[in-house]
Amino acid sequence: MVKTSLSVAVIGAGLIGTSWAALFAAVGGHAVRVFDPSPAARAEVAARAAVMTGQLAALHEVTGSAPVVCDSLAEACSGAVLIQENAPERLDLKRALYAEIEAAAAADAIIASSTSALVWSDLARDLAQPRRFVTAHPFNPPHLMPLVELFGTDPAVLERAKEFYAALGRVPVVLKREAAGHIAGRLSAALWREAVALVADGVATVADIDRALVNGPGLRWAVVGPHMGYHLGGGDGGMASYLETLGPSQERRWASLGTPALTPEVRATLVAGIAEEAAGRSVGELAAARDRATIAILKSL
Amino acid sequence: MVKTSLSVAVIGAGLIGTSWAALFAAVGGHAVRVFDPSPAARAEVAARAAVMTGQLAALHEVTGSAPVVCDSLAEACSGAVLIQENAPERLDLKRALYAEIEAAAAADAIIASSTSALVWSDLARDLAQPRRFVTAHPFNPPHLMPLVELFGTDPAVLERAKEFYAALGRVPVVLKREAAGHIAGRLSAALWREAVALVADGVATVADIDRALVNGPGLRWAVVGPHMGYHLGGGDGGMASYLETLGPSQERRWASLGTPALTPEVRATLVAGIAEEAAGRSVGELAAARDRATIAILKSL
Repeated sequence: MVKTSLSVAVIGAGLIGTSWAALFAAVGGHAVRVFDPSPAARAEVAARAAVMTGQLAALHEVTGSAPVVCDSLAEACSGAVLIQENAPERLDLKRALYAEIEAAAAADAIIASSTSALVWSDLARDLAQPRRFVTAHPFNPPHLMPLVELFGTDPAVLERAKEFYAALGRVPVVLKREAAGHIAGRLSAALWREAVALVADGVATVADIDRALVNGPGLRWAVVGPHMGYHLGGGDGGMASYLETLGPSQERRWASLGTPALTPEVRATLVAGIAEEAAGRSVGELAAARDRATIAILKSL
Repeated sequence: MVKTSLSVAVIGAGLIGTSWAALFAAVGGHAVRVFDPSPAARAEVAARAAVMTGQLAALHEVTGSAPVVCDSLAEACSGAVLIQENAPERLDLKRALYAEIEAAAAADAIIASSTSALVWSDLARDLAQPRRFVTAHPFNPPHLMPLVELFGTDPAVLERAKEFYAALGRVPVVLKREAAGHIAGRLSAALWREAVALVADGVATVADIDRALVNGPGLRWAVVGPHMGYHLGGGDGGMASYLETLGPSQERRWASLGTPALTPEVRATLVAGIAEEAAGRSVGELAAARDRATIAILKSL
């Protein structure tokens, strides 16, 4: 594939922003300019992006270019075809940032927000040109996980955004309607709610629930989604047959699912349970092990 | 590992029973005797088990022994140390079967039910020796998926059952309390409920929701469970930090999750959506592709 090097900006250089920057530069071959208001964050970009680029080299052909860290937002945004915003999840802060970005950006630049919790209609409210604004939510860490969830109101802008992320080896999915938590966050919350209920109800430990998921449904869901899973559970008749014979029992199961509250007792049980599961490994060590296994799976598929 | 060849019975030779039989024989090196009341099912065991044994050869050292198909339940159960029951999910039918099995089984044989939907206390009600009865729910197909969910009331019996399944390369998880759907079925139902809600609410298509899961959370859940996922989402402070800063927003997200009903309209949308996603591939073709990808992932881990 012939790659077109584009000018791309990354605003906010935490883990998500730095991961995007590494992907844009190493896999896209783009000229990436990064800005973060924190000098400490700016100082860490190069080293952290280099580690991520090393991980990317196991999966993709990577280029030698590295993201360039800028001293101002205007410098990072100037001339960029796409500006990826990764600020903290606060509406007032993001809206103020968009005013700055619009003042500095080229007229046809796409402004893309990595927001996980906020929705397009709230974020876009004060923009001069809301049609060029999209939510583009990655799954953490963006340089490894293929999913990018997109929402916007201009089909042409969405099409350009889809092409941009797809050219990076990502899998863009466009929502037909905005939803808080998009798709992945809502599915994750639904799963965790029942996982917490099983802990709260004393059915199994935190570690055993995680072990059950990873060795059962989780392994399945790396291959087929929930709808396809039930389609294949319906025998030769597929989904129609499943709904016919097991639809009513599925609705009873849904009605029986837990609705836990994060009371102090439940929180304490979760924290103690995860300490048992972590068995002395730090968050950093566990995340590194997760990333290694993710890379192994991505290579196998 | 030195393997001890045991005498093992499989009652009910549908997909689950045949998959267990192939695993017990090929990976465990056990002498496996299979019974099914249907002559047609009995006639298919050898060919279907051979295909599964071929899949197992990619993952394990397999033996040359094949399951033996018996003409009576008593013949299959006689002398077996463990009897794996895989009858249809009807309480009356399973209870009647257990009376027959108890009459034929050795005094210390473990009777294990593959039930996905029924619970220990209902199934064990009429048994003469309920303490040697366990539910041992595999994740389909049992010869590939590691998870086995166990519940019973006698710790010594549970320990023997755990050792039996672990020696087959399975990952046994013991529930502290029985639960309809065990762990995996409840987590799957929770996920699918929200996936159906997203379809019913018009947020995304069936195919796009499956695509989002497989390229995002599903890929993650083949590596870390839901609790560990949120632990790693809490930064260096882990679960405690996550609960402190994002617990309230997670509870609001839970409250916002959908509670769909499988109305005729929703069913039609699911069936049409899965047809679009299947794109002409039969259930058999899709299941074979799923199994190939599962084997590739299991090899990579």
